[in-house]
Amino acid sequence: MHISLTETAAALKAVQRIVITAHVNPDGDAIGSSLGLMHALKALGKEVQVFIDDDIPAAFSVLPGYELIGKPAEGQSIPADLLVAVDVSLDRIGKVAEAVKAPTLNIDHHITNDDQADKLYLDGTAAATAEIIYQLIEELDVPCTQDMAMCLYTGIALDTGWFRFSNTKPRTMQVAAALLSCGAQPHVISEALEQRPLSEVQSLAFALQKIEILADGKVAGICLDNADLQEHEAPEGLIGMVRVIEGVDIAFTLKEKEPGLCRVSLRSKGIDVTKIALQFGGGGHVRAAGCSIEKNCAEARNDLIKAILQVVEAES
Amino acid sequence: MHISLTETAAALKAVQRIVITAHVNPDGDAIGSSLGLMHALKALGKEVQVFIDDDIPAAFSVLPGYELIGKPAEGQSIPADLLVAVDVSLDRIGKVAEAVKAPTLNIDHHITNDDQADKLYLDGTAAATAEIIYQLIEELDVPCTQDMAMCLYTGIALDTGWFRFSNTKPRTMQVAAALLSCGAQPHVISEALEQRPLSEVQSLAFALQKIEILADGKVAGICLDNADLQEHEAPEGLIGMVRVIEGVDIAFTLKEKEPGLCRVSLRSKGIDVTKIALQFGGGGHVRAAGCSIEKNCAEARNDLIKAILQVVEAES
Repeated sequence: MHISLTETAAALKAVQRIVITAHVNPDGDAIGSSLGLMHALKALGKEVQVFIDDDIPAAFSVLPGYELIGKPAEGQSIPADLLVAVDVSLDRIGKVAEAVKAPTLNIDHHITNDDQADKLYLDGTAAATAEIIYQLIEELDVPCTQDMAMCLYTGIALDTGWFRFSNTKPRTMQVAAALLSCGAQPHVISEALEQRPLSEVQSLAFALQKIEILADGKVAGICLDNADLQEHEAPEGLIGMVRVIEGVDIAFTLKEKEPGLCRVSLRSKGIDVTKIALQFGGGGHVRAAGCSIEKNCAEARNDLIKAILQVVEAES
Repeated sequence: MHISLTETAAALKAVQRIVITAHVNPDGDAIGSSLGLMHALKALGKEVQVFIDDDIPAAFSVLPGYELIGKPAEGQSIPADLLVAVDVSLDRIGKVAEAVKAPTLNIDHHITNDDQADKLYLDGTAAATAEIIYQLIEELDVPCTQDMAMCLYTGIALDTGWFRFSNTKPRTMQVAAALLSCGAQPHVISEALEQRPLSEVQSLAFALQKIEILADGKVAGICLDNADLQEHEAPEGLIGMVRVIEGVDIAFTLKEKEPGLCRVSLRSKGIDVTKIALQFGGGGHVRAAGCSIEKNCAEARNDLIKAILQVVEAES
């Protein structure tokens, strides 16, 4: 059931024990929104826990509260009055769904949200869920602290590609300006999130030699099989390097994280890449989507490229 | 002579024929500020020309008015009532200084400005000169158009590393929000400025193999001699790849653009790199500076590394 921002604030005020969760394979917006909301609800005197059913990349330890994020154990039961799922549909919260048997409140900006929660606040015009959380904090009348600001600025910055993507709206920037006033330190965030070991920079050089160009240069991608990834740690942000090649509309990376399990990232400059990701049970945004394919690298590559070329052909 | 923003606006309103210039080796802020101001002054009915004594990278053709930027010819004389130098001290405008014999108005945000212009509006708290130009446009009471907004957003985005650097202040973001409202399209700007040929991505892989690590990992850099650069075009943004290596405080690149002429870029996470750049007649900001060294690659490398290590030692 869709509710308003005011009703969302009221639903949070009405309960005491709150568990916050987000999607598996969490990104900056999922983590930043979860922690930003946690700090705000704690300031209201609530008992708040964040559980995400995945490992949280260590780079996010720059975010205040990082160390408080739990991962549900098999069969664990977590008592709560309310389960708040941010930046996600309920079907992508993993084991948290079984661990927390409580009414559900869903806060999201993905227009693909499945509307399965008891209550849903969806704002598809927000660049990031963190942008919504800031408005919610204002609605809750909680003073925005530096801890909240650091978390929420991170969510907005990462979901807008640092204010580059077309989802960057005046309101996005106004919220970011307010977060700076509350003490967000973009250079601290960016330096922490962009740090990479020398070995990873060197593995980037390796990966860049594997770029493949398809569809007359409209599509470019890099496939790394499990053997490659055993030898060279997969560099973060690799897809960004592919995306900037002149003439490329769709960029992809395919990484065989485990033998027979490939994670795919898709970026575009125009074509709706959710059309590709949805075919493999994934999701995302028009210009940034992802999915997993349970096949080995060569087979997954074939399936993915076929799907990409079909979409490219349909668009041209 | 230092003047106020209001006096700057009055000085512009008082004249008819205006030449705008910026520094040689112009960056996004120099180009964006020049063009943004040009559009605003044209809207006021002024006769405005932009002259920069350098080639303007083709990527900036995304900026409205790019094609109007002139380069002064040897011995050319350009009539004007006022020469406006933006984002620069007067000593770095090249041949424009001889070509335009007119009173000078200088608008800048570099605290290293040499204060040699007839009139100087300096705001060292501004993240970019483009941020000042936006305030000037408001002061001039010119409605901000999409053309102006595209140019000024570019200047701000590039001088703040897309809202990452510590110079990103609430006012910076508020100006950026206003520019979005005026029609700035960050995705168009970023996609244009970040495009690179496949060959350049491949040359990046080459360059990354040349990373050298110094001072127990506090310093990292890449030197490309003229032979390297003949074979592999120097990739833009290379220094950004060095800067993110864990533990590195000072990152540098040294490119022997012509035999015996090296261009140096310096970035830091804390140490003031102008202390290094100034030793070689360059300049910049605490965290981003540059200079040229008129020696071959090996000699310039020795001089540069000596200067860097001295500064690192003095700081530790």
